[in-house]
Amino acid sequence: MNDYTDHTAGIVLIGAGNVATHLGIALKKMQFRVVCVYNRSIDSAKLLGETLDVPYTDNLREIPVDAGLYIFSVKDDALSGLLERFPKTRGLWVHTAGSLPMQIFQPYTDRFGVLYPLQTFSRDRQLDFTGIPVFVEAGHQEDEQWLLQVARDLSGNAAVLSSEERRYYHLAAVFACNFSNHMYTLASDILEIRKLDWKQLLPLIRETASKLEDLAPKDAQTGPAVRYDRNVIEKHLGLLEGDKNKQEIYEVISNSIHSRCKK
Amino acid sequence: MNDYTDHTAGIVLIGAGNVATHLGIALKKMQFRVVCVYNRSIDSAKLLGETLDVPYTDNLREIPVDAGLYIFSVKDDALSGLLERFPKTRGLWVHTAGSLPMQIFQPYTDRFGVLYPLQTFSRDRQLDFTGIPVFVEAGHQEDEQWLLQVARDLSGNAAVLSSEERRYYHLAAVFACNFSNHMYTLASDILEIRKLDWKQLLPLIRETASKLEDLAPKDAQTGPAVRYDRNVIEKHLGLLEGDKNKQEIYEVISNSIHSRCKK
Repeated sequence: MNDYTDHTAGIVLIGAGNVATHLGIALKKMQFRVVCVYNRSIDSAKLLGETLDVPYTDNLREIPVDAGLYIFSVKDDALSGLLERFPKTRGLWVHTAGSLPMQIFQPYTDRFGVLYPLQTFSRDRQLDFTGIPVFVEAGHQEDEQWLLQVARDLSGNAAVLSSEERRYYHLAAVFACNFSNHMYTLASDILEIRKLDWKQLLPLIRETASKLEDLAPKDAQTGPAVRYDRNVIEKHLGLLEGDKNKQEIYEVISNSIHSRCKK
Repeated sequence: MNDYTDHTAGIVLIGAGNVATHLGIALKKMQFRVVCVYNRSIDSAKLLGETLDVPYTDNLREIPVDAGLYIFSVKDDALSGLLERFPKTRGLWVHTAGSLPMQIFQPYTDRFGVLYPLQTFSRDRQLDFTGIPVFVEAGHQEDEQWLLQVARDLSGNAAVLSSEERRYYHLAAVFACNFSNHMYTLASDILEIRKLDWKQLLPLIRETASKLEDLAPKDAQTGPAVRYDRNVIEKHLGLLEGDKNKQEIYEVISNSIHSRCKK
């Protein structure tokens, strides 16, 4: 058995946050063998360990060093510090971050890679991995092929992607997910302050997302900013009187919509 | 028969844009009798008239004056000018706009109201009205009850709502739909400029919208701006180098997310 065929040696999850949790559940569902959950706080390690029915620890020295795959799902700025203290292993080390290069592992191990699921993970939400893009890369060809197979088993939508390109998917995801969700938040704030029901927006939000099955987003754009309907825009800015933050966002995005629609 | 019971006298659609088209299709599907489509451009009138298989015209004098309901779905700033020239009728006049008060009809007729579907309408997209909130109001109680019944038949989710409150739903819809769709557009631009596939964002966009079935949007928020991860934020602003518009939007919304999450 060489370094690249220990695929049955089990998986260690490092981190017990939203990504690690959903990934762990999906791996287990697909019959992968998770052998340990490590987290620096034992409470979170315990929670995920018990969810997956596997051993858990907050002690780096208790992590099995003979596993095949180590998946690091920790905050970007915590990863380097953790890698410095991490025990030496033969297995493949990967992270799940959008904006960290694969080379972050290079000082610490010879076998490294990335397994990046392009998705938003919230704890209190069941998630089906089917169809989620999972982008992989690795320092060695054999590891990359293995990761690609793991990703395929997880979602059916797997591809090799460079660190450079992954950064752009992550940036795009911030706009498409984080920023659009904040638009939902501002919308619900506008209604709740008037004691109106934000859930009445759900059919609209669903349709706005569903339209993209048929139309490119630029072709799906509607609303007063498209034709820069100054009458409606002024009324809306008036309703936001006293809320400088929402007014600024309204103006900046309306201007951006209008100039994008002229193209 | 009094003025308020001519409910079988048919419906005239004024305007042939996206709202009129989808409303016409839904009305017809629910067995309402559309008797005429008017539009100032005959081409659009013809298109919708033929879609609904009803007479169409671009001549105000050809509009039947004995219909029961006249639904005005024209641009906000075109409505007053059109009403001035519109033939006198006994039927109920309603508009479908989010930000126009019902009283805009008052100089022209005694029977008026609003039928406002809270949804985004694109022509090249099939739409199911089921569950779409349809907000109604009318000057007379009897008309309001009738409109409420029409709205219930259309979507099953109907309610009486004042002009004042409707404005806030419209404003919230601009954030939840128009602005979030623009976030999708910017995301797809970021990927397309690098020859990457924006459709890989679809599972993420779907999940971001679907999360709201379980979580309030503020509780569903994820991403670097939540904890104001300056490291990732600086990297992203760097990737947007030379694109002042996207940089400004990135910063304004990230700041807004961060201050909202501290609450």
